[in-house]
Amino acid sequence: MARKVILDLDTGIDDALALVYALASPELELIGVTGTYGNVLVETGVRNALAILELFGRGDVPVFAGPQKPGFEVLEISSFIHGSNGVGEAVLPDPRGRVQEDGAVEFLLRSVREHGDDLVIVPTGPSTSVAAAVEADPFFAENAHIVMMGGALTVPGNIKHWAEVNIHQDPEASDLLFRRCRDVTMIGLDVTLQTLLTYQETAVWRELGTARGTFLADAADYYIRSYEKFDPDLGGCGLHDPLAVAVAADPTLVDTVDINMMVDTDGPTRGRSIGDHTRLNDPVKTSRVAIGVDVERFLGEFMSRLTSLAGER
Amino acid sequence: MARKVILDLDTGIDDALALVYALASPELELIGVTGTYGNVLVETGVRNALAILELFGRGDVPVFAGPQKPGFEVLEISSFIHGSNGVGEAVLPDPRGRVQEDGAVEFLLRSVREHGDDLVIVPTGPSTSVAAAVEADPFFAENAHIVMMGGALTVPGNIKHWAEVNIHQDPEASDLLFRRCRDVTMIGLDVTLQTLLTYQETAVWRELGTARGTFLADAADYYIRSYEKFDPDLGGCGLHDPLAVAVAADPTLVDTVDINMMVDTDGPTRGRSIGDHTRLNDPVKTSRVAIGVDVERFLGEFMSRLTSLAGER
Repeated sequence: MARKVILDLDTGIDDALALVYALASPELELIGVTGTYGNVLVETGVRNALAILELFGRGDVPVFAGPQKPGFEVLEISSFIHGSNGVGEAVLPDPRGRVQEDGAVEFLLRSVREHGDDLVIVPTGPSTSVAAAVEADPFFAENAHIVMMGGALTVPGNIKHWAEVNIHQDPEASDLLFRRCRDVTMIGLDVTLQTLLTYQETAVWRELGTARGTFLADAADYYIRSYEKFDPDLGGCGLHDPLAVAVAADPTLVDTVDINMMVDTDGPTRGRSIGDHTRLNDPVKTSRVAIGVDVERFLGEFMSRLTSLAGER
Repeated sequence: MARKVILDLDTGIDDALALVYALASPELELIGVTGTYGNVLVETGVRNALAILELFGRGDVPVFAGPQKPGFEVLEISSFIHGSNGVGEAVLPDPRGRVQEDGAVEFLLRSVREHGDDLVIVPTGPSTSVAAAVEADPFFAENAHIVMMGGALTVPGNIKHWAEVNIHQDPEASDLLFRRCRDVTMIGLDVTLQTLLTYQETAVWRELGTARGTFLADAADYYIRSYEKFDPDLGGCGLHDPLAVAVAADPTLVDTVDINMMVDTDGPTRGRSIGDHTRLNDPVKTSRVAIGVDVERFLGEFMSRLTSLAGER
């Protein structure tokens, strides 16, 4: 039986790829998308999620808007990487569907109560919505299973030398997530910078000649071009968010270490994700961090799944 | 056949315990001690190493002095932890032997040329002497096998929230070590703060009624008392340097991950040990970092080895 999944996205190019990965995965049943800020504003992300779901024939999946962060503006680097519309200026027709009246936090709380161990939540942006759920109901932290894209443990960050951008945008929220939630898998830059997409793969989508294939190729090409400029030595773009979804579908794709994590919220390293020294010798570990990834197998799954779904009209 | 070992010590209480561990290990043949600064001044460390070797009946092991660091003064926290004489004010009679005329760097270079793969070098202080060897002769970096105590990858540092003290005292040296040496095992706070010594163990040494036992108990008790003051929640003192020696004798004591490491030498996180993102996808890994340790087995070996040797008069 497929595992139920909620994606908490700031859609974003790699979020878009992650969303399609979830739709294309027989191990997962997408029961909803919650939208947060980060790569884009909440309203842009929600709009993109609705439009992508419809493009891929899944307008039935409900989309919920998460809390705004007061005063949040999209960072210059985020606009540079994801384009002004969040999907690299790729054309994405306006959705017919609308965002749900319920908020993201209510949906998260209700879904964990309803589905328990049958549900996995995959946040790919700041931890703001998840932290709000943690604070609203102790049941959530005790019972939610979370596979998050965010953080950097064994490698430098991206927005700061010591901080990954999702964590850095709300350090208190991610710190709360790590300290309170009982089951967190962290998919950070440690592994996502090992899983690279290149023009070779996007050409496959373009050759499909479908609206879906063209959208994926246009968005991903924009993303690769951005990476060429700000990280020219990497040799591709990091498949950050898709890897988190892939691990939710198949945890054996990564090697993990059990570490109780925290986030620095004070001092010069604000936003750094690091092991919690006060829980180093606690035999109970509430989080695990991916430090190795089967790159070839993940890229194979990624391409076969997305290409298959994008080939349909 | 025992593996030859050189200890590069800033002797130091845990350095003293590490030195005795090496003498008590049948897997290791100690061919020399090189002295560096850090916990103490070079001259204090060299004096302590000579005196401990004689106390344990091994005045035949040569001791070499490493380069001074211009302007170096022992940190207040180091004096607090290790005492003004470096061994917690424990009584240690003046040695009869004297430091070698050759310097530490010459001895390191000569030994790697002479013994190659039969030799392991265990630095437990700043990387200054090893870095000088790296710069003096490319053969050294290509052929030296190094098991170092230093750094923190998955936990916060000790001298700074982001930096371990050995690395922090000469970040450029440790960075050079990580970038140029071909075989480095990092034993950092990730594991050494899991291996704790308490008064329960030091009482065993005291009850031996030997000069050696009394020395070990006095020095270690001082160390535990210091830890009680500056890290009261830890529940003991970290066996930093002894664990590095133990791993040189038996690598199976720790779980490691292969990561090409570097040290931040600029910016607010100067002194942080972290994965080198420019070599993240390089299939050749020149270092491995211990992230797990068999605490029970190590503590068992530690106590049985040191107690056995300290029981002799």
